[in-house]
Amino acid sequence: MRRSFAKATFLSAHQTYSRSPLIILGCPYDGTSSFRPGSRFAPNSIRKASRALETYSPSLEADLQSLNICDLGDLEFSYEEKTKILESIQKVARKLLADNKKFIFLGGEHLITFPLIQEIHRVYPSLVVIQFDAHADLREEYLGEKYSHATVMRRVLDIVGMGNLYQFGIRSGTREEFQLMEKIKKLSLWDMGGVVEELGDRPVYITVDLDILDPCVFPGTGTPEPGGWSFQELASHLEKLKDLNLVGCDLVELSPDYDSSGISSLVGAKIVRELLLMLYHTH
Amino acid sequence: MRRSFAKATFLSAHQTYSRSPLIILGCPYDGTSSFRPGSRFAPNSIRKASRALETYSPSLEADLQSLNICDLGDLEFSYEEKTKILESIQKVARKLLADNKKFIFLGGEHLITFPLIQEIHRVYPSLVVIQFDAHADLREEYLGEKYSHATVMRRVLDIVGMGNLYQFGIRSGTREEFQLMEKIKKLSLWDMGGVVEELGDRPVYITVDLDILDPCVFPGTGTPEPGGWSFQELASHLEKLKDLNLVGCDLVELSPDYDSSGISSLVGAKIVRELLLMLYHTH
Amino acid sequence: MRRSFAKATFLSAHQTYSRSPLIILGCPYDGTSSFRPGSRFAPNSIRKASRALETYSPSLEADLQSLNICDLGDLEFSYEEKTKILESIQKVARKLLADNKKFIFLGGEHLITFPLIQEIHRVYPSLVVIQFDAHADLREEYLGEKYSHATVMRRVLDIVGMGNLYQFGIRSGTREEFQLMEKIKKLSLWDMGGVVEELGDRPVYITVDLDILDPCVFPGTGTPEPGGWSFQELASHLEKLKDLNLVGCDLVELSPDYDSSGISSLVGAKIVRELLLMLYHTH
Amino acid sequence: MRRSFAKATFLSAHQTYSRSPLIILGCPYDGTSSFRPGSRFAPNSIRKASRALETYSPSLEADLQSLNICDLGDLEFSYEEKTKILESIQKVARKLLADNKKFIFLGGEHLITFPLIQEIHRVYPSLVVIQFDAHADLREEYLGEKYSHATVMRRVLDIVGMGNLYQFGIRSGTREEFQLMEKIKKLSLWDMGGVVEELGDRPVYITVDLDILDPCVFPGTGTPEPGGWSFQELASHLEKLKDLNLVGCDLVELSPDYDSSGISSLVGAKIVRELLLMLYHTH
Amino acid sequence: MRRSFAKATFLSAHQTYSRSPLIILGCPYDGTSSFRPGSRFAPNSIRKASRALETYSPSLEADLQSLNICDLGDLEFSYEEKTKILESIQKVARKLLADNKKFIFLGGEHLITFPLIQEIHRVYPSLVVIQFDAHADLREEYLGEKYSHATVMRRVLDIVGMGNLYQFGIRSGTREEFQLMEKIKKLSLWDMGGVVEELGDRPVYITVDLDILDPCVFPGTGTPEPGGWSFQELASHLEKLKDLNLVGCDLVELSPDYDSSGISSLVGAKIVRELLLMLYHTH
Amino acid sequence: MRRSFAKATFLSAHQTYSRSPLIILGCPYDGTSSFRPGSRFAPNSIRKASRALETYSPSLEADLQSLNICDLGDLEFSYEEKTKILESIQKVARKLLADNKKFIFLGGEHLITFPLIQEIHRVYPSLVVIQFDAHADLREEYLGEKYSHATVMRRVLDIVGMGNLYQFGIRSGTREEFQLMEKIKKLSLWDMGGVVEELGDRPVYITVDLDILDPCVFPGTGTPEPGGWSFQELASHLEKLKDLNLVGCDLVELSPDYDSSGISSLVGAKIVRELLLMLYHTH
Repeated sequence: MRRSFAKATFLSAHQTYSRSPLIILGCPYDGTSSFRPGSRFAPNSIRKASRALETYSPSLEADLQSLNICDLGDLEFSYEEKTKILESIQKVARKLLADNKKFIFLGGEHLITFPLIQEIHRVYPSLVVIQFDAHADLREEYLGEKYSHATVMRRVLDIVGMGNLYQFGIRSGTREEFQLMEKIKKLSLWDMGGVVEELGDRPVYITVDLDILDPCVFPGTGTPEPGGWSFQELASHLEKLKDLNLVGCDLVELSPDYDSSGISSLVGAKIVRELLLMLYHTH
Repeated sequence: MRRSFAKATFLSAHQTYSRSPLIILGCPYDGTSSFRPGSRFAPNSIRKASRALETYSPSLEADLQSLNICDLGDLEFSYEEKTKILESIQKVARKLLADNKKFIFLGGEHLITFPLIQEIHRVYPSLVVIQFDAHADLREEYLGEKYSHATVMRRVLDIVGMGNLYQFGIRSGTREEFQLMEKIKKLSLWDMGGVVEELGDRPVYITVDLDILDPCVFPGTGTPEPGGWSFQELASHLEKLKDLNLVGCDLVELSPDYDSSGISSLVGAKIVRELLLMLYHTH
Repeated sequence: MRRSFAKATFLSAHQTYSRSPLIILGCPYDGTSSFRPGSRFAPNSIRKASRALETYSPSLEADLQSLNICDLGDLEFSYEEKTKILESIQKVARKLLADNKKFIFLGGEHLITFPLIQEIHRVYPSLVVIQFDAHADLREEYLGEKYSHATVMRRVLDIVGMGNLYQFGIRSGTREEFQLMEKIKKLSLWDMGGVVEELGDRPVYITVDLDILDPCVFPGTGTPEPGGWSFQELASHLEKLKDLNLVGCDLVELSPDYDSSGISSLVGAKIVRELLLMLYHTH
Repeated sequence: MRRSFAKATFLSAHQTYSRSPLIILGCPYDGTSSFRPGSRFAPNSIRKASRALETYSPSLEADLQSLNICDLGDLEFSYEEKTKILESIQKVARKLLADNKKFIFLGGEHLITFPLIQEIHRVYPSLVVIQFDAHADLREEYLGEKYSHATVMRRVLDIVGMGNLYQFGIRSGTREEFQLMEKIKKLSLWDMGGVVEELGDRPVYITVDLDILDPCVFPGTGTPEPGGWSFQELASHLEKLKDLNLVGCDLVELSPDYDSSGISSLVGAKIVRELLLMLYHTH
Repeated sequence: MRRSFAKATFLSAHQTYSRSPLIILGCPYDGTSSFRPGSRFAPNSIRKASRALETYSPSLEADLQSLNICDLGDLEFSYEEKTKILESIQKVARKLLADNKKFIFLGGEHLITFPLIQEIHRVYPSLVVIQFDAHADLREEYLGEKYSHATVMRRVLDIVGMGNLYQFGIRSGTREEFQLMEKIKKLSLWDMGGVVEELGDRPVYITVDLDILDPCVFPGTGTPEPGGWSFQELASHLEKLKDLNLVGCDLVELSPDYDSSGISSLVGAKIVRELLLMLYHTH
Repeated sequence: MRRSFAKATFLSAHQTYSRSPLIILGCPYDGTSSFRPGSRFAPNSIRKASRALETYSPSLEADLQSLNICDLGDLEFSYEEKTKILESIQKVARKLLADNKKFIFLGGEHLITFPLIQEIHRVYPSLVVIQFDAHADLREEYLGEKYSHATVMRRVLDIVGMGNLYQFGIRSGTREEFQLMEKIKKLSLWDMGGVVEELGDRPVYITVDLDILDPCVFPGTGTPEPGGWSFQELASHLEKLKDLNLVGCDLVELSPDYDSSGISSLVGAKIVRELLLMLYHTH
């Protein structure tokens, strides 16, 4: 009976798991959000908004229509402890990698990047992580917690090591975080072109915290920070990464209920379309 | 792989089709083709809102938790012609009835009631239809169309025949519609208690157009009409029907995007919970 | 060229001035000078919302369709002084009365009632005013002003005299205002039935300050006051007045931009439909 | 320098601590909210909305203007652990009671009632608690937590003992909670008149969870539940308690950011005005 | 009586038809029949918003105040068939051109451009059309329809012929549409300066689909597409066209009710002011 | 008792008056008397939003945390006449200057700049005023008023004299205002770099009318004007002024209730953080 019913998938991602080299998975966890939660509703909101988009991307000159992509739906969390949730994310990532799948995870909050990197780094020890974000997320601790959306990239740094984390768009943090960013790499020296050249064939993971965008473009987020990027800036930065060896992505911190216009979800969906085309291209 | 992921179902309606005597089905048809909604978004919005409810109904003293109910998801419509869509709804209803299932359809617009009644009347020729609605929907034609949300109950009347349609809450219509209502049955004579007694064991179908509610209770609808019922009035009217021989239900005209507070979807979800408990009770 | 273009009128009020015994006139005065509204936007918002209504009123069993009513549009105010504006309202009212017209004025703020009563009392010295309102509006002065939305009914009382003002729905005021209300008439003794009987053939003017409604029914107003009437309470109170000798009406304090759902304007429009039918009935 | 500046207080509550027998205190804690948080912003939102109200209450025939009431502002919480926060609330309550003050606490979430009852019960061992609420809040545990907004009244029950908790308006809970409610006292037997008579001179604490109100009246809350009371129902129930021996109050679960119309905060403020007048009356 | 009442016109466009070389006309067609909007509400929303603007344009150094412009109001459509509506638009355009008027049409949806170009091309066979738009609108058919907002520029292309359509801002379409755009003209070669030089004295029609703007600037539209222009980009592109031989304009796809802030309508009104000054300048 | 309660201050501005060389003061004047806002709500809304910000500014490489700043709260106005209010603002400014304090005033409307400049110019006769604004505010009179938000900078010009007012971002005004701006100084000649060099050590006052920002960045204002600056443009312009001899600032025209997303208040708060750091730096 099932077959004739609509699955709420991202655009045309109707393919089965076994036939799809590329997997979409919703990860509706927002347990450590401090200011305003709600990113748990993001994956379904992105799927709904995706229906307003064309499958064709004029900037990448590529079309989702014909690609084998499977949208698995959302991971299910009962209100468990954070540790168990991180473990369950990690376990799913492990399975996907064992099955030789690439994936894009739709958060949820930024902390989900940590278990994903744990697993993906095991498979790709020379992994490079490129972070688009308004916030450094490099605190050693936050409100007494070692694992939180405000410390997640510090934990990622612990895994991938100095020199393997590239941060773009950071405009908020403590003095200590900005000092650490100096040490990691001279921020001012980075431009996308240089980074691409430097990375060559190395395996690359992209994590997009959508609050990198200006709140006027993307009000639907828990910790909006004025002074961000336009949609076009983010899209063109991402586009420059299209020939890298991309091995995985996530997209986090959309809180759709803070934007009744629905534009934030549409913005998220359009970025997902571009990321899917880029990931597929390099598989 | 599938099993570990959240299906976006109504509350605890996780059971398989074969084990469930009661089926939930989304029917996201609203006859328009542009991005902005749209009762087409209602079924998923009701599912999302249902998570904020308890499974236990204190007024019915019954609990959804332990019941075998299957939420099949949504019927899929590509932007086909109205006729084809009505046929496909009819076909699904036929299959469900052949499999001996009871169902609740989540619209979508009110026109979906027509193909459902076509099929259910075939199985239950003595069918009675109880309509909760702000609008009579008894026009012979509307804007030149014979099949429309404004004519749907006239078409239903054509099927079930004079005396087998009971209307509650009507507060808007043309003079001709109110004259027809007089003829169908003296509206003022109807009270729920009398109707229940009169109907006895006859098979009953309930169609709930949520715009019966006052716009302050339920702003999320396409044609709000001031002066409607409170939630409690609707709930207690429905409750009085609980010992009738209910054979099917639908719930229509929620347009969730017109109510950014999300309350309208919550109202719809709570009514669905009550209807499910009532349908299951009599199966 | 003009004739083929849409005039934005209230429902079917397309008749010419000369053929119409009943006139609608917008009076977009709200005494402030900045961009944001503003009950000044109410008349056009009511006209727009009226298109969502049927012309037939089931409770009055009457239809606007066939009646000769002229919607004159809005009075034009350049940002003049309050005194001049009140004079110009008064002058228009005088002309309408001289032409033997009944009218309904769509505010704007409550102060517009004052110049209207000035004129209508001249024609009908035994005038009775029935006020539906959340606020007493009986202050002698407000912020040093003698003429204001908070003093308007005191000024009206000055004109019509003790015993000729009936107030319904008042739930906010100073201690002094409530003491005055006691003196005017024992509020608790009033019920609509008694008032109707008492008034007999006397000429009656109705002023409806829509904030009498509960803020949940009618959020689109400048000074919402919790604990108000439902739409149905207001509608049925008004209906009871239908056989009185109604000589004029106004409807004030809708600020449509405070209610993005549009329901407040729809509520206003439906009340206007009922008032028009009642006024016409008694002309 | 300080004296000439506006303190953001509730209406006219400008008196000093030492001269005031009645204290207002904001308690912006929302750490255990499950569905939608945000009640931390309630106290200031209530203060802001209070400026739109008259100081005079027509139903109580009393005026705040002349009373000695001190609005202390908000308790300050850094993002500490729940246990510490509960302790600090308890400590403040102890101090207020030691200074012979009555108080009204403005939440925040419902859990704040627990430390308040701990202290107030120490002073008044025969304390009765009257709860207005949509939810029973009687779970033994919730998501593994013993102290939460969903268990708070069970904890209160542990303190005051069977027979000393009166619940009104409950319309949501688990089957177990409703069974416990049966045991506590036959809900259907309670009416306000009977309760008042029964209580006589006993010390009474009132806790108002504003979600007792229908979501159309009060959308600004974290767990809205359709089918609630009107403002007038809550106000008149409270009014009946005015001659009891009231020793303290709280008002919880307003989340102002979920209601951009501001009406929810206005509703909260008006209830606070009535509670203050009732508390003062009996001091 | 009429003369003393406010006409709701665009800013200072109060002149009579006969004295005005430049005409404003609302064309509230959006092809749907339900209550909720709808670009059908755009013309009046633009007129209302225009009152917040100065009549003087600093960038064009010109002032509307002294110009003879007539705002005719809106074309009236009863809910007729699309074909009849297109014919009636065409007929009005023919009359305006016969009377030697220039015009700006305020949509409504983009399809209205088609009948306008039909007529204007008859008068100016060497007509060039400049389209500002997010979407190519070049589909041969859309959902089985040859005439639709998604095919309108293909129909316009049929009329004016290859090489006479210039498109700016397109960022969404099918692969086929982008291939056609390549063929029409190498998009990347176009810059406004080059176009202006190339066009010289040829008659030019400008159609502005406001969804060319980024959704953050202009959320009030039916099919928002992230990644669009800023207001300033659109304004300065338009300004560069000021010395062309402009013979007509339209402005489409504002749906004011999707933007409760009112900014979208203000944006539309400011663009209309600039277009009027440009059209008048070249008449 | 007071000390343990949260004062609603801007970020970490907890220091006492006497120890603080830099003072924050709210000035909630908006010249209207009705309930709905209202820039009068801006100061508290900015304070609330400031809690979402870090104390560290990466662009200024400075941290508020360690600085001695006192947030005095808001000036209290009973609804007095404009003249008295202006006098009371002037009096407070005089006291602050006498105590050798620098200050930032948080409006309220732009008119508050006038009494501030009156006093500050007395202390610094060579004062230069830098205005960031969408509107020239240079009318000689507005609606018959000499002192208004639309004339305020003309009054300031009267005080400081030709050549001592620098205006940035102006995009709206009458032809006369733009002609005056020409005379004051060739606007096109101004760039921030040149201005900074020219000013050297002269005492500088900065007035920021936040409507300089584009309405998409800053919808929460009374007279939004399309085509404005991005947040980054304003922030970087301000940053260039950091080495000037700043003697005072104000920030006006935030109307928080027009932006239910809260972003406008966050934008205001972030600009205040930068201004505080700049003012402190030069004290």
